[in-house]
Amino acid sequence: MKLYEKLADDIERQIRGGVFRHGDRLQSVRQTSQQRQLSVTTVLRAYLLLESRGLVVSKPQSGYFVQLRPGSAAADAAADAVEAIATPKPIALSSSVDVSRLVLSTLRSIAAHDAVPLGSPYPDTGTFPLEKLNRYAYAAGQDPSLRPLQDGLPPGHPQLIRQIAKRYLDKGQAVDAAEILVTMGATEAINLCLQAVAKPGDVIAVESPTFYAMLHAIERMGMRAIEIPTHPELGLDVDALARIAATQPIAACMVMPNFHNPLGFVMPDERKRALVELAARLDMPLIENGVYNELYYGDAPPRTLKSYDRQGLVLHCGTFSKTLTSIYRIGWALPGRYRDQVEKLKFLNTLTTPPLPQVAIARFLERDGYEAHLRRLRKAYAQQGSLMRAIVLRFFPAGTRASTPQGGYVLWIELPEAVDAMRLYELALARGITIGPGYMFSVSNSYRHFIRLNYSTPWSPAIEQAVITVGKLAADCLR
Amino acid sequence: MKLYEKLADDIERQIRGGVFRHGDRLQSVRQTSQQRQLSVTTVLRAYLLLESRGLVVSKPQSGYFVQLRPGSAAADAAADAVEAIATPKPIALSSSVDVSRLVLSTLRSIAAHDAVPLGSPYPDTGTFPLEKLNRYAYAAGQDPSLRPLQDGLPPGHPQLIRQIAKRYLDKGQAVDAAEILVTMGATEAINLCLQAVAKPGDVIAVESPTFYAMLHAIERMGMRAIEIPTHPELGLDVDALARIAATQPIAACMVMPNFHNPLGFVMPDERKRALVELAARLDMPLIENGVYNELYYGDAPPRTLKSYDRQGLVLHCGTFSKTLTSIYRIGWALPGRYRDQVEKLKFLNTLTTPPLPQVAIARFLERDGYEAHLRRLRKAYAQQGSLMRAIVLRFFPAGTRASTPQGGYVLWIELPEAVDAMRLYELALARGITIGPGYMFSVSNSYRHFIRLNYSTPWSPAIEQAVITVGKLAADCLR
Repeated sequence: MKLYEKLADDIERQIRGGVFRHGDRLQSVRQTSQQRQLSVTTVLRAYLLLESRGLVVSKPQSGYFVQLRPGSAAADAAADAVEAIATPKPIALSSSVDVSRLVLSTLRSIAAHDAVPLGSPYPDTGTFPLEKLNRYAYAAGQDPSLRPLQDGLPPGHPQLIRQIAKRYLDKGQAVDAAEILVTMGATEAINLCLQAVAKPGDVIAVESPTFYAMLHAIERMGMRAIEIPTHPELGLDVDALARIAATQPIAACMVMPNFHNPLGFVMPDERKRALVELAARLDMPLIENGVYNELYYGDAPPRTLKSYDRQGLVLHCGTFSKTLTSIYRIGWALPGRYRDQVEKLKFLNTLTTPPLPQVAIARFLERDGYEAHLRRLRKAYAQQGSLMRAIVLRFFPAGTRASTPQGGYVLWIELPEAVDAMRLYELALARGITIGPGYMFSVSNSYRHFIRLNYSTPWSPAIEQAVITVGKLAADCLR
Repeated sequence: MKLYEKLADDIERQIRGGVFRHGDRLQSVRQTSQQRQLSVTTVLRAYLLLESRGLVVSKPQSGYFVQLRPGSAAADAAADAVEAIATPKPIALSSSVDVSRLVLSTLRSIAAHDAVPLGSPYPDTGTFPLEKLNRYAYAAGQDPSLRPLQDGLPPGHPQLIRQIAKRYLDKGQAVDAAEILVTMGATEAINLCLQAVAKPGDVIAVESPTFYAMLHAIERMGMRAIEIPTHPELGLDVDALARIAATQPIAACMVMPNFHNPLGFVMPDERKRALVELAARLDMPLIENGVYNELYYGDAPPRTLKSYDRQGLVLHCGTFSKTLTSIYRIGWALPGRYRDQVEKLKFLNTLTTPPLPQVAIARFLERDGYEAHLRRLRKAYAQQGSLMRAIVLRFFPAGTRASTPQGGYVLWIELPEAVDAMRLYELALARGITIGPGYMFSVSNSYRHFIRLNYSTPWSPAIEQAVITVGKLAADCLR
């Protein structure tokens, strides 16, 4: 162990042991250096390490202050957010919380076991118009006027960009087609948007729980996530975010205001407006994950953060992977004032987005009743969600709670605290069923007794039996 | 300007003004802090900034030392590498040398103008088996056994991975199929390999000139490029690299030892071995760009750096974009001991590589005479290259020199010094012809009178006339 790590550990023990309280000022770097006979650099590094652990904050011209609120946790807040929401401590991503490895191994299990995919993040593809798309892609490939290089260059194929812009307009949201950039799915869109607005070491505010692709993007760029209390039905606590932003710089905030994954809520319009106003006050970019926006259960689509934005601070990301096909990985970004940076990063990251899938989707949108397809999908998902929720509440152990999704296709379930979701995951996998363990949705271990279930597969006795089995296994975990 | 930036600028002026010499020790952080009445943090930041500018190096327990070698330049060395090669000074990437914007705008011009694509980096697609591939992709899309999610997850589709491994074995190079990762073209492969071995601020050694995608990858990650003298026929100067590595840490070296873009050379086997041995001694990863490896003009493929590697230090990247189709963007990496990191980064970057193109290429490789296709391609490129070179030497202004490519499809041309390649680019574009200005191949402005021409298009009077026109325009630039 290096000297500065040892020093940081010593001070951490003192903080945790109660020697220092929240708000106490640490000795100056120079004092500690003299007292401990350590170089100034060593002390400074130790303090920076403590800062990255979320135990101290630095204030310009004043020094380092202890930042600790014992007992509070984002989890309590999210599980029962109607009660007063405590400000969570900043939580640094560390390599020991390697969310992406857990997610990849979960996806691999799904792939390898031909299991009932309750743990899948992907929509069931059975109802997707894959054959039509495949025919359009084939036709585009035979078209001699398609130019392999040029038609894939950023910003993307003009035919698809027109269709994407038209969808927003049809839903009542004016967008500028010139802002749109086509990407390799929303994954690339989110990555590029984040990279355009923040740099390694920066702190990024996220919801708690949050969709793990957001955590991946942060992890990959060497940034740090801070989890903001998030009401299970109303979404991100904007006041809490404002309070935290007052104590430390937040480089950006990543949110999923509609059909949040995993919570399923729609943030009320007033809260959306307040969040965009806060962002404008702080000049803080908002990365809006809108991948489920087309999958609303109500009569009309919810508003986006983007629709409130007057400053170009909202970077809005969407995809066709949830509604048409995930096989092509076609997503897009509307990056506001960061458009040019994001376009350049797209070019550097993957050069082009393959043009045939873009043309295939554009032709489908032009001709083949995308809206009718979506209506069927929304109705099916709403019904399947209600069914799964009812089964869970009936067959899972007493004390189990479930979300009430307003759209999308995932259910978030809080099990009794004694149930470890990773153990449940392994038990279920042994029965040929996958589930999404709550661990994946946080860097703070806050959701160890939560699971996410996917209800996009058409309802069947096999699905029903699988859900009931998971409930029984959860009960077994309590014994 | 912040205090620490001001201090760094002051010290830089002193260094450049000769107050400090190479090897001199800076005052300690504490001394400077007391002398200048600045906080220790401010001084430390200034020193770190100077380090990032390549002007000082820190040595553990000793302090900061000036690191400066005045006067030398990579450009002189590369332009006439037979003469003694001077050690170049480190060249930092700065936003003012925005290589990627120049490249993107060049590609856009090609796209927008339907011009004679002498400036294109891409192979002509007229001879590619696009129809067959399109049919295979369609068939794969109709195959109910293909699972959209699972079959695209890293490392890639097993059927394609087997075929990639088989190609290496057929060429006499044993590779482990389990090492192979499929990526979105070589662009993503190179990006991920670089990210796996180095971090922002690190110094990456590159050839001079170097393929701009390498510079993009470095730029994107916030790393710094140092250009190593490169002989136009023998490749990277391994001794020069060793000397530079002795004075400062080099996090990785990116090279294109076969059919270098733009120089066209094949590094002799002895030099390849020496480079791999140096890498082993320094424990320095080598990122090997092998995208043209199949396009050799001789009787047998040249050896790869990878084939000499016993330490897992070579991260080898390949692609089908140069030989089969660039429309699918299917490449791969063989990342040696960094395989697991690269796989994880692939997952974080774009989640999956779309499976249909992977299956289409795999089926083509299994059934359709890839080797015969390549033989035709190699023969055509060798002939077209000779023709273009002859035309250039005959019709371009006196003093023009041209490379002698051993493979691939690009010619590197040194024009008389008075010709500015950007001006020539604009003049040619006005005549409906694109060229690749030398600016794109360096961060040091070393190749302002160089251009790259693409000879992959089947020879025709129009091509010949376009080349002659570029020569005439170059002559006009001299008046």
